Amino acid sequence: MSKFIKKFSKTAGRAPGEIVHVGARKMEKSKITIIDYDAGQIQEKEVKTVEECFPFKDKPTITWINIDGIHNTEIIEKIGSYFDIHPLALEDIVNTGQRPKCEDFEKYIFVVLKMLYEGKNNADIEAEQVSVIFGPNFVISFQEKEGDVFNAVRERIRNAKSRIRKMGADYLAYALLDSVVDNYFVILEKIGEKIEGMEEELVKNPTPQTLQTIHTLKREMIFLRKSVWPLREVINSLARGESELIQATTLVYLKDLYDHTIQVIDTIETFRDMISGMLDIYLSSISNKMNEVMKVLTIIATIFIPITFIAGIYGMNFNPEASSWNMPELNWRYGYLITWGIILVVVLLMLGYFRRKKWL
Amino acid sequence: MSKFIKKFSKTAGRAPGEIVHVGARKMEKSKITIIDYDAGQIQEKEVKTVEECFPFKDKPTITWINIDGIHNTEIIEKIGSYFDIHPLALEDIVNTGQRPKCEDFEKYIFVVLKMLYEGKNNADIEAEQVSVIFGPNFVISFQEKEGDVFNAVRERIRNAKSRIRKMGADYLAYALLDSVVDNYFVILEKIGEKIEGMEEELVKNPTPQTLQTIHTLKREMIFLRKSVWPLREVINSLARGESELIQATTLVYLKDLYDHTIQVIDTIETFRDMISGMLDIYLSSISNKMNEVMKVLTIIATIFIPITFIAGIYGMNFNPEASSWNMPELNWRYGYLITWGIILVVVLLMLGYFRRKKWL
Amino acid sequence: MSKFIKKFSKTAGRAPGEIVHVGARKMEKSKITIIDYDAGQIQEKEVKTVEECFPFKDKPTITWINIDGIHNTEIIEKIGSYFDIHPLALEDIVNTGQRPKCEDFEKYIFVVLKMLYEGKNNADIEAEQVSVIFGPNFVISFQEKEGDVFNAVRERIRNAKSRIRKMGADYLAYALLDSVVDNYFVILEKIGEKIEGMEEELVKNPTPQTLQTIHTLKREMIFLRKSVWPLREVINSLARGESELIQATTLVYLKDLYDHTIQVIDTIETFRDMISGMLDIYLSSISNKMNEVMKVLTIIATIFIPITFIAGIYGMNFNPEASSWNMPELNWRYGYLITWGIILVVVLLMLGYFRRKKWL
Amino acid sequence: MSKFIKKFSKTAGRAPGEIVHVGARKMEKSKITIIDYDAGQIQEKEVKTVEECFPFKDKPTITWINIDGIHNTEIIEKIGSYFDIHPLALEDIVNTGQRPKCEDFEKYIFVVLKMLYEGKNNADIEAEQVSVIFGPNFVISFQEKEGDVFNAVRERIRNAKSRIRKMGADYLAYALLDSVVDNYFVILEKIGEKIEGMEEELVKNPTPQTLQTIHTLKREMIFLRKSVWPLREVINSLARGESELIQATTLVYLKDLYDHTIQVIDTIETFRDMISGMLDIYLSSISNKMNEVMKVLTIIATIFIPITFIAGIYGMNFNPEASSWNMPELNWRYGYLITWGIILVVVLLMLGYFRRKKWL
Amino acid sequence: MSKFIKKFSKTAGRAPGEIVHVGARKMEKSKITIIDYDAGQIQEKEVKTVEECFPFKDKPTITWINIDGIHNTEIIEKIGSYFDIHPLALEDIVNTGQRPKCEDFEKYIFVVLKMLYEGKNNADIEAEQVSVIFGPNFVISFQEKEGDVFNAVRERIRNAKSRIRKMGADYLAYALLDSVVDNYFVILEKIGEKIEGMEEELVKNPTPQTLQTIHTLKREMIFLRKSVWPLREVINSLARGESELIQATTLVYLKDLYDHTIQVIDTIETFRDMISGMLDIYLSSISNKMNEVMKVLTIIATIFIPITFIAGIYGMNFNPEASSWNMPELNWRYGYLITWGIILVVVLLMLGYFRRKKWL
Repeated sequence: MSKFIKKFSKTAGRAPGEIVHVGARKMEKSKITIIDYDAGQIQEKEVKTVEECFPFKDKPTITWINIDGIHNTEIIEKIGSYFDIHPLALEDIVNTGQRPKCEDFEKYIFVVLKMLYEGKNNADIEAEQVSVIFGPNFVISFQEKEGDVFNAVRERIRNAKSRIRKMGADYLAYALLDSVVDNYFVILEKIGEKIEGMEEELVKNPTPQTLQTIHTLKREMIFLRKSVWPLREVINSLARGESELIQATTLVYLKDLYDHTIQVIDTIETFRDMISGMLDIYLSSISNKMNEVMKVLTIIATIFIPITFIAGIYGMNFNPEASSWNMPELNWRYGYLITWGIILVVVLLMLGYFRRKKWL
Repeated sequence: MSKFIKKFSKTAGRAPGEIVHVGARKMEKSKITIIDYDAGQIQEKEVKTVEECFPFKDKPTITWINIDGIHNTEIIEKIGSYFDIHPLALEDIVNTGQRPKCEDFEKYIFVVLKMLYEGKNNADIEAEQVSVIFGPNFVISFQEKEGDVFNAVRERIRNAKSRIRKMGADYLAYALLDSVVDNYFVILEKIGEKIEGMEEELVKNPTPQTLQTIHTLKREMIFLRKSVWPLREVINSLARGESELIQATTLVYLKDLYDHTIQVIDTIETFRDMISGMLDIYLSSISNKMNEVMKVLTIIATIFIPITFIAGIYGMNFNPEASSWNMPELNWRYGYLITWGIILVVVLLMLGYFRRKKWL
Repeated sequence: MSKFIKKFSKTAGRAPGEIVHVGARKMEKSKITIIDYDAGQIQEKEVKTVEECFPFKDKPTITWINIDGIHNTEIIEKIGSYFDIHPLALEDIVNTGQRPKCEDFEKYIFVVLKMLYEGKNNADIEAEQVSVIFGPNFVISFQEKEGDVFNAVRERIRNAKSRIRKMGADYLAYALLDSVVDNYFVILEKIGEKIEGMEEELVKNPTPQTLQTIHTLKREMIFLRKSVWPLREVINSLARGESELIQATTLVYLKDLYDHTIQVIDTIETFRDMISGMLDIYLSSISNKMNEVMKVLTIIATIFIPITFIAGIYGMNFNPEASSWNMPELNWRYGYLITWGIILVVVLLMLGYFRRKKWL
Repeated sequence: MSKFIKKFSKTAGRAPGEIVHVGARKMEKSKITIIDYDAGQIQEKEVKTVEECFPFKDKPTITWINIDGIHNTEIIEKIGSYFDIHPLALEDIVNTGQRPKCEDFEKYIFVVLKMLYEGKNNADIEAEQVSVIFGPNFVISFQEKEGDVFNAVRERIRNAKSRIRKMGADYLAYALLDSVVDNYFVILEKIGEKIEGMEEELVKNPTPQTLQTIHTLKREMIFLRKSVWPLREVINSLARGESELIQATTLVYLKDLYDHTIQVIDTIETFRDMISGMLDIYLSSISNKMNEVMKVLTIIATIFIPITFIAGIYGMNFNPEASSWNMPELNWRYGYLITWGIILVVVLLMLGYFRRKKWL
Repeated sequence: MSKFIKKFSKTAGRAPGEIVHVGARKMEKSKITIIDYDAGQIQEKEVKTVEECFPFKDKPTITWINIDGIHNTEIIEKIGSYFDIHPLALEDIVNTGQRPKCEDFEKYIFVVLKMLYEGKNNADIEAEQVSVIFGPNFVISFQEKEGDVFNAVRERIRNAKSRIRKMGADYLAYALLDSVVDNYFVILEKIGEKIEGMEEELVKNPTPQTLQTIHTLKREMIFLRKSVWPLREVINSLARGESELIQATTLVYLKDLYDHTIQVIDTIETFRDMISGMLDIYLSSISNKMNEVMKVLTIIATIFIPITFIAGIYGMNFNPEASSWNMPELNWRYGYLITWGIILVVVLLMLGYFRRKKWL
């Protein structure tokens, strides 16, 4: 449940802009890394104190400050005040229950989105909040915990010939968002495989466990949908190119990213439809099974009840000596055999009836 | 039901603008409190008569008049005529069946919204109507009964260093709305916990009582949705900043409030989806249980009916003396044992059949 | 059904603008009443012939002509030609299958809407078509039959001090529409009470009759929805204030009326949701009941079938004299008692099994 | 099925604008009729060859050319080239799988819509494609087969005093569209009657046949919806009055037609809702019936199984002579009567239990 | 499943614009064919190396380069760099998981869409990605494998009199898109036939296999929908005519193509509705069948259980010698016959009861 609603009650009644960490603390100690580069040179270091970041602010090179671990609100506050970030943005960075959103503060653009990853025992999908703030020559990214999704971007920056080295901070921000969205496809692929497995299971041998799995998948889709839907508007507002912070050359990449987001949403909707279909199949296969159980019962009961009645009749103790009307069959020479004959006929009639009904 | 529709029939046929209290009377006597402040000073008092509020109107300081209890229409009318409030707004204040809305009367802005709180026996969510009117230097708030949601705002006002002391009446109005919306998260958290509890119950041991609870949760969500959906448009119309009463510095806060409202609505929709999923699970778990009952019946009946028939056969009274064709088995040396043998074979065949069908 | 579709076939093939009454004739004779007033004076009379209305047309005072009974197309045509009403508007007035709509013919505005009232045996909701035409100084209203919904407006007009006496024809038209919409709340309240009653019945003792009632309620909601939804657009187009016939002072009242309409629609949607929920509850309570029936059957059958088999065994007639292997138990000293003992053990085992399964 | 998708494969791979008849051939030989009129005179004739139409093109009078039977593509092509119709429009005329649409080719407006009529054995609703092309002084209409829907328009043209004689070609085109839409109401009325009949049947005696009929109705509604929905946009685009071919006086009539179209769509949606409701009712009435069957089975089995066991007990052959413990009851004076007494008590207890459960 | 989601994980973490083939390799070796034509002449050849295409670029004639097989990224890159195509477009061409889309790069327009064809064993519908890039005098099309859908276009080009020879590259691009969309109708026709077959099967003899087929059809519709829906926006953006690359004369053809696309979508939605309806029918026919099974069981059990009880009674061994109260019936003259009479009466009463209940 904690996936669906955070402990907001912590913030109720607080003044807006007050920086209170909401959510689970996912790593021990915050970690700050800086990459500073332009087309010609690159400098990369991990710093101990937040103050070490400040000199980079006024350099013309592009500076990427990445902060892993947002529970340390002191760091956030210091960076915020040095880079002149609005308190409400800072509040959103540390409140992990945010909906993906994009806000243009003129001097910088603030983007919140959700990074998805698989939970430990491979069962659940979890989300981590990633915030990106970018201005003319800096990008600051905040993650709840260390992750490897941004590593590919780091690699590309280290490669002196890559396009990213020639572009601005807006392109770097785009690259970060792009790597998050690319990662959605990996998650979707895994869910797609689960759904495929389920479909085979459904056809072969549905169990109550199957229902549980369908339900879990459905909840995952609700969660994914909640995390990804708002992203559409986020990327779209960036791709409209209304901010001066985003250069024209970057816009075509943002549009491409927008297409990817739509594709993710499309796939989520398709999966939702498929899971709904699976539930229908499950329910009717239960009905089918119950029908089969009923048939077996009915066939057995319908065959044996009448012949048991016949046997019951000749178990009656009417006194043949009191009257020749009383059960004379019992004294017939072939009475027993005739009775078996009748029983056989009844059984065959029944079987014929069931065959005609297509129950057998 | 009274939650869903108020006794509007009271007002049917009345002239518009006539001030008639619609809804339950939730407290004995109306209570009027005044907080008057600017950056430098603060004055707080509870007044007996509404006339005591009037002197504050023309002071340049910011005046917040809070009225708890709206059944006393005389107070509303006096305030209304002194502050020059439109009769239709006054009518809406006392008619607790209002839909959340925001109206710009140029000289003041009128906002109606719903405060949610848990009912007495922790079972139900109830709503109280809160109306806020704010002009250049005054805010008048109306509540159905005393509540503690606004206390945090009062605290912040009393703190001489807080931002609220430096901002205008529009910021105070925002702070009141914000405290109401923040409170929604507290309510949602509690519902989230209930849903979580239900999901476990569903998996472990669903009972007809479970169905009742799902139904109640569903109704709560319908109620919440009805109360919160229109708020989106209310806050949005404020955040568009078309009124001169709202300063530019406040707009960013209103936008933040708008994001919170969207988040509340998102969560409500997610909960609705989850509750629907729970109903599906419940229905199929009933089907599964009935299936299991059927299987037990079928297994028992299918095993015993044939062997009872066998016993019935040898309970027949055919006269062995009349003919050697009549039930010679009864006189066989091992007839009884052979019969038991046949019974055993039948039972084993049946069990094998059921095992193959995976019913056992 | 006649509620849902009128006998339009009557008009198929006719020229547009031809005035043909479509719908049931709901009163014997049409009745024409005139109220003519301004701030200073008021004149009220019932007239025999439509021509008596004409002198009022050119007087500067506000004239309200109310016509009860629209089957008399001659009256409609005369009024239409004297007040210069477009033939299509006249056609719509007498065709009671109209959808609520609003048309601005520049010299006058034409509004059609539905008045709802309860059917005779308190069971059904029925609709009556009300048309209102208003120009600079006249209002003409058409009803299918006499009703008391407009009486409150008449009362207010008679009261010399009421606001309505000081306002124009547009305000009078607003007052008529307002009284119709106010009446919707009365109808909704009654439906709300029925739904409340149903919910209790559902929980306590659902019967097939309950299903029938849910179905009827559902149909009522479809009908209400169809009648009220288009009203939203009608009132909105009036409240936008694009016509010169509507004064600025009236606009705020129309906006208020718009809010009321939204509230009615909201409530209808909420009721629809609740009724859908009730159907779900009903269906699962049927499933639950069938489950319970199955359990009783299964318990009884499962307990008695095995012990009947035991009794059947010792009813077999194997000849103990033919061999000491044949049913020696029958001659044991405690054979009968032992058999009862076995029966008891079987029964207890079964009961234990059911208790473990939580069927008892 | 052919109702839902035409044999488009015939046209796949053809050049656009190639005129290929798609659909069933509904009459033997195409029939061309011409009505040429203005306010003063009228001329009406049926022509053998399409060339006879051409002289009317340049006359100032209004010419209506009606072509019944569109399988003769040669006629269509000739008319098309003489009246300078775009090949794509001609292609659409003969391709009966068109969606209703309206295209403005500046010199003329091209409208495609569906005429509905009942199938032969009163069971099904079928659609015929009607195309109308109108320019400044001509209207050309194409029908798949002769029909009587346009006869009412012909009658009105013949009447020298009718409005249609004074208006232009745009009004004539309107009149044709109007007669098609009016005809929808006739079809809807018939469906409405079927639905009404079904509802009664549902309550009184639902059979599997009922389900089949509901299903057929549902399919009819899907078909109707598909045929009528796009019409809304078609009429709306005409009523916006952006074309110079449509005079201002005709616009009010087109708006009225638009209202009728909305009304048709509204009714279709209402019927869809009602049919869905009927399916729900049907399903729960099946559940109810199965419940009742189960109850009868359970009551009979539950009453007789225990007493059959009692009878079974005293059918056992324990030897009373071997021991006085063995079934002494058999020798009691009132043993038999006591047994009957016990049986009676058991039966009464059972009946009491069932009465308490409200199964009886 | 691979139909629904491609192996995107291959691209996650790569730089945007990197050209990586995503999807199955559907043919051995890429094949490049060139058709170069204007109104007067035509030249057609298959080339071995991509460089052979380059001379055509600067000729004023219209050049159509068709590439079958996109797994050879080298070819794509060479063409891309020579024709100055944006890397992101090239990336999209080889990534077969694209959503249909249209992008205007000013110097050329880039369109991606899905070609549908039936899978090998006639069971499934599969999609192939087709990309079309067209500039002022060239069209480049990319297909995953050789197909015959474009052959009709080739034929038309070869025909010196066809319209296509007189029009520009935009018309050629339109012709390619049109042939893809036309092909959708062929696919829909086949699905329509399957649905029709299913409907008959449903009525006559539904089996669990039927359910499987309905489910497969439903999945196909989800797949089709996903492939075709976005096309609407693609064609619409072309038909709006905002690009200078599209001439006015082509626009009317694009509008026609847009209508066809809407028609395809309409048909898909209709099929979805029909398949949903079939699922409902299937489920209720299962319920009906189970009901019938229950009835047979109940009738047999209800008739035989009471009469078996009667037989059981007279199988009891109460000692008639111990008392004359003990089963005197056994010694009656007509005891046996009377018993049969009672049995007969019970059976007839039961049958009458069932007939009244309409179970027989």
